[in-house]
Amino acid sequence: MLRTHTCGELTLKNAGNSVVLCGWLQRSRDLGGMTFIDLRDRYGITQLVFNMETNASLCEAARKMGREFVIRVHGRVTERSNKNLKMPTGEIEISVDSFEILNEAKTPPFTIEENTDGGEDLRMKYRYLDIRRSPVKEALLLRARVAAETRNYLNKVDFIEVETPVLIKSTPEGARDFVVPSRMNPGEFYALPQSPQTFKQLLMVAGMDKYYQIVKCFRDEDLRADRQPEFTQIDCEMSFVEQEDILNTFEGLVRHLFDAVKNCNIGELPRMTYAEAMQNYGNDKPDIRFEMKLIDFSTLSKGKNFKVFDEAGVVLAICAKGCSEYTRKQLDELTDWVKRPQIGATGLVYARYNTDGSIKSSVDKFYSPEDLKLWMEKCNAAPGDLVLILAGEEHKTRKAMSELRLEMGSRLGLRDKDNYRALWVLDFPLLEWSEETQRWHAMHHPFTSPKPEDVGLLTSDPGKVRANAYDMVINGVEVGGGSIRIFNKELQQKMFGILGFSPEDAQAQFGFLMNAFEFGAPPHGGIAFGFDRLCSLFGGADSIRDYIAFPKNNAGRDVMIDSPAKISAEQLKELQISIHKP
Amino acid sequence: MLRTHTCGELTLKNAGNSVVLCGWLQRSRDLGGMTFIDLRDRYGITQLVFNMETNASLCEAARKMGREFVIRVHGRVTERSNKNLKMPTGEIEISVDSFEILNEAKTPPFTIEENTDGGEDLRMKYRYLDIRRSPVKEALLLRARVAAETRNYLNKVDFIEVETPVLIKSTPEGARDFVVPSRMNPGEFYALPQSPQTFKQLLMVAGMDKYYQIVKCFRDEDLRADRQPEFTQIDCEMSFVEQEDILNTFEGLVRHLFDAVKNCNIGELPRMTYAEAMQNYGNDKPDIRFEMKLIDFSTLSKGKNFKVFDEAGVVLAICAKGCSEYTRKQLDELTDWVKRPQIGATGLVYARYNTDGSIKSSVDKFYSPEDLKLWMEKCNAAPGDLVLILAGEEHKTRKAMSELRLEMGSRLGLRDKDNYRALWVLDFPLLEWSEETQRWHAMHHPFTSPKPEDVGLLTSDPGKVRANAYDMVINGVEVGGGSIRIFNKELQQKMFGILGFSPEDAQAQFGFLMNAFEFGAPPHGGIAFGFDRLCSLFGGADSIRDYIAFPKNNAGRDVMIDSPAKISAEQLKELQISIHKP
Repeated sequence: MLRTHTCGELTLKNAGNSVVLCGWLQRSRDLGGMTFIDLRDRYGITQLVFNMETNASLCEAARKMGREFVIRVHGRVTERSNKNLKMPTGEIEISVDSFEILNEAKTPPFTIEENTDGGEDLRMKYRYLDIRRSPVKEALLLRARVAAETRNYLNKVDFIEVETPVLIKSTPEGARDFVVPSRMNPGEFYALPQSPQTFKQLLMVAGMDKYYQIVKCFRDEDLRADRQPEFTQIDCEMSFVEQEDILNTFEGLVRHLFDAVKNCNIGELPRMTYAEAMQNYGNDKPDIRFEMKLIDFSTLSKGKNFKVFDEAGVVLAICAKGCSEYTRKQLDELTDWVKRPQIGATGLVYARYNTDGSIKSSVDKFYSPEDLKLWMEKCNAAPGDLVLILAGEEHKTRKAMSELRLEMGSRLGLRDKDNYRALWVLDFPLLEWSEETQRWHAMHHPFTSPKPEDVGLLTSDPGKVRANAYDMVINGVEVGGGSIRIFNKELQQKMFGILGFSPEDAQAQFGFLMNAFEFGAPPHGGIAFGFDRLCSLFGGADSIRDYIAFPKNNAGRDVMIDSPAKISAEQLKELQISIHKP
Repeated sequence: MLRTHTCGELTLKNAGNSVVLCGWLQRSRDLGGMTFIDLRDRYGITQLVFNMETNASLCEAARKMGREFVIRVHGRVTERSNKNLKMPTGEIEISVDSFEILNEAKTPPFTIEENTDGGEDLRMKYRYLDIRRSPVKEALLLRARVAAETRNYLNKVDFIEVETPVLIKSTPEGARDFVVPSRMNPGEFYALPQSPQTFKQLLMVAGMDKYYQIVKCFRDEDLRADRQPEFTQIDCEMSFVEQEDILNTFEGLVRHLFDAVKNCNIGELPRMTYAEAMQNYGNDKPDIRFEMKLIDFSTLSKGKNFKVFDEAGVVLAICAKGCSEYTRKQLDELTDWVKRPQIGATGLVYARYNTDGSIKSSVDKFYSPEDLKLWMEKCNAAPGDLVLILAGEEHKTRKAMSELRLEMGSRLGLRDKDNYRALWVLDFPLLEWSEETQRWHAMHHPFTSPKPEDVGLLTSDPGKVRANAYDMVINGVEVGGGSIRIFNKELQQKMFGILGFSPEDAQAQFGFLMNAFEFGAPPHGGIAFGFDRLCSLFGGADSIRDYIAFPKNNAGRDVMIDSPAKISAEQLKELQISIHKP
């Protein structure tokens, strides 16, 4: 090695040692007689000292180096007079005897420090410089740690990591596939997997019993702010299990991760049905770091001649603790907030429970003080609280109220990033009706099994059928989801029929799986975790981007390597495809 | 869980216990009063016993089940009267109280046993059944184990696993890329990586210091017998290193893998230069499980009026120990063997050193007994040995002789699969001349650095420049290779120039890397191991296919899922591409 130590390991114990360090020049301070340089590598920062009095030419040479120069220094570890106890190497410095410049550096386009002046675009273009910054570097180290601990846990409980293929077949169900033209089979295409779903089920048919993989998946979707065309899943499947076994095994995984990576005990995960989650939180991924449940005011508020409420499908309230002093301006601003198209409410009704015990509402003229008192009782409000009410079509109003609840939670500081609250949401509906396509869609995916007691409803009332499906939710984020699968050919065929597949289409697309079910398929089920999201959650970040070494932007471009790009005419010819003229 | 135990864990210690097992019916034997069933899962096989006398109806029901039925049995662990000490569960059996059929099975298309009657095509089509067979299952378990131990070792020495992107940019250097049309950027394509080479180098520029990844790579090549369009690499890179550091680190990895997975100490790896390997073995991946080095007879054999030798670029011999009794027929067959187009020799000369001390050669009339005696001395032959000689153009003859050496090694049983001999081959040439393209090609890749002492030759005599490149070879198979990289923009530009890139093309294709070198690139180098091949080597198999869960055939097809396949007109329209009419 070109070095004897890294920049993160020397302490007072090494005082007097001769050492060789390599790294990047983070910062240089010229104090007249002395020059101090912070030398940085992945492991930390070590201070170098050059002395004008003892070696003027060396000190002068050192002063000529710019930020991000790569250097190699020989020197002695000495105790600092001015100690910095905040950093592991802060009690020592290196009295440099000699150094060599391994590589020079142009001035970086943004400062490579904890907080940078670089905008998102610039940082992405020079991602290799951005990664030198401590927050991004730490994010990638954290990701590696979460992956390693995931493997440790799963290996220990007999899961086998199996790689499934990346070049597979396009299927119409689900999101849009990326496809890969096959040169050897002209006119035909591979597809990149949106998940290894069918392969992991085949591995269960194959008797692998417990499978996992930390695996890249692909979706050609119009990207929202925090989606990537390629993303990573922790993908798992088990045989001879019931839902309870999956919940226990993967609650164990997540508990282990929090323990090993965050040194934090998240306790047992509470469980909530989909129906309860929708009722109490208006959301199938409730943030349970705070209460503020949705209260149904429908019965209480109707029949008092307030047309908005009388005609509403539902009237919902939340109680914001300690907010009775909200000013008119604040309430107007909140009203504007709920009326934004993303939220979609038509207006906001409030009722303040003043600290003097009086109640003041924006709809006083329809409701007597006694009526309002009942409202307060219904939502367990106390003097000093503020009740916020939305009304309208049920689904839309629940959704809007869920957003308002989260917003109020944020405003009240109830959503601390370091407070982790995980839960299971269970008993999802198997199917949801799409007005757009006028057919049933699988809420999870077409391989999810209905609850045995609901199978009869498949024909009579498909929307009522509950699935053996479960999501793990942490702090309002769905980090994982899965189901017990169908493992019987007839039921799988029936499911494809309900989803609008002709028997021929079902056979053409998924025949390999249904045929496999005829050769002794075991009962099985599994789960997949969004690994990028899980890592960002562990890191306390909102965006997944810094947890991906080389992410793409919202147009699906890698601006660093400038991809996608044109390919040569010869490549197109070999693939026997043409590009449409614009 | 549907079971209390697996089929691989019950022993005499459990005698008397009530247990529940799940698995596949491997075999059923009806012995009149008793029926025995072997129940199989991933973990092993457990014998079930049904008794006509004690429970006739249960026994009759059991007899009705076919092979590969999936069942769940309740019963008691009892000591066997007829023990099978070859299997872990061989001292017990399960007296079955009740069972249920979890899933029926059609008769499998081939027998699911250690040795199957299924041909390659059938086994691939029903891969999920093939994996149930012990040799394939064990191959996949071995693969998972090698991956886990690779991570254990690399994590312990501070390597960080970083995922690099799968959707990257097509580059003209190297093999043919698979490409992915971008819907959001019509007319443009991503490419799938042939390796994460440039990304791992950027991670070094980014200061990640030690990187690894077990990663899928892709090459759109016409497939030879044992190539796959998608394959897996153990990909590694380190900063602030010299060649010696890489060799030590990864010799350590491979030693660890042999120790942990095969319980075998492979000792220190010998090192050999490329020049030595070519001279002594005619091969840059020599199989050193046996000697039989290539001996240069050129000086010794010329000038005796044997035209074939006199006109040959080189005359090469090997000494096959103990083969002097080869019959005429055997020698003719060997002559035919070397004349096959794959070997390409024009003929084979032999000289037997008979056990009586006489020497008999096919070219006796040109060489005196004294001449032949000198031949024997030159190759250290003893009475009883057979010397085989090829002559012709140097490169071709060395290659042919290498093949003959390997063939003779195999025939003589010198290539035992359980005898592992690993070595490093060093000092590869940096460049090789291609007659086809009439230009220099990088022997390793364009990022490999020349030896500093040879840099001067880059302009004057490029073919003489040695690279800081190294291969790890085990039993004649190149399992890994790498190099110390160029980390300086000017040298990298010069290298692209030698490879025939215009400055503009070099900048367009690899500008992102060369620009990165200007912002403080550290000295760095790395290595990549062919993971599929490494696993097959550990498993003692010639083919990599059984070490891949879902391999493709030689036409690049997955015959199980029938991929690649046509995609819909709508997909093509969205991608703005058309397929050429045949």
